[in-house]
Amino acid sequence: MKFVIKVRLKKGILDPQGKTVNQALHHLGYEQIRDVRIGKLIEVEIDESDPRKARQILEEASQKLLANPVIEDFEIQPEE
Amino acid sequence: MKFVIKVRLKKGILDPQGKTVNQALHHLGYEQIRDVRIGKLIEVEIDESDPRKARQILEEASQKLLANPVIEDFEIQPEE
Repeated sequence: MKFVIKVRLKKGILDPQGKTVNQALHHLGYEQIRDVRIGKLIEVEIDESDPRKARQILEEASQKLLANPVIEDFEIQPEE
Repeated sequence: MKFVIKVRLKKGILDPQGKTVNQALHHLGYEQIRDVRIGKLIEVEIDESDPRKARQILEEASQKLLANPVIEDFEIQPEE
């Protein structure tokens, strides 16, 4: 089964990378773009046919390794 | 308007970061997980009320700065 894990900085956490990209966009003339925030889009394949178990494994792996739960939220979705 | 831009490595392009994460997951005991690929999830707000124009601006910005079109594909979606 394929899943996508979306990892985003929590609200209120500063995103220096996003800010830098935003400034670069302004320098290029894209003044309309603002509030750029950059997260991760992690695509995985998992050898587990039970979707509930697969999700549980990914939940645990996200907590432990894929995301930093102190500053990031994550969301697990089956891939279409 | 808010949009999400998903940036993924094209098929066939090696993903050393994903490979490293995959190995780390195996070391932690998550042997079922494989084919980890890591992309970017870019959230932006844009001061443009016409959705077609907004998308056009983001398309251009993605080509020029947010993605590397040689090795990455991108997808622009309005955020729910």
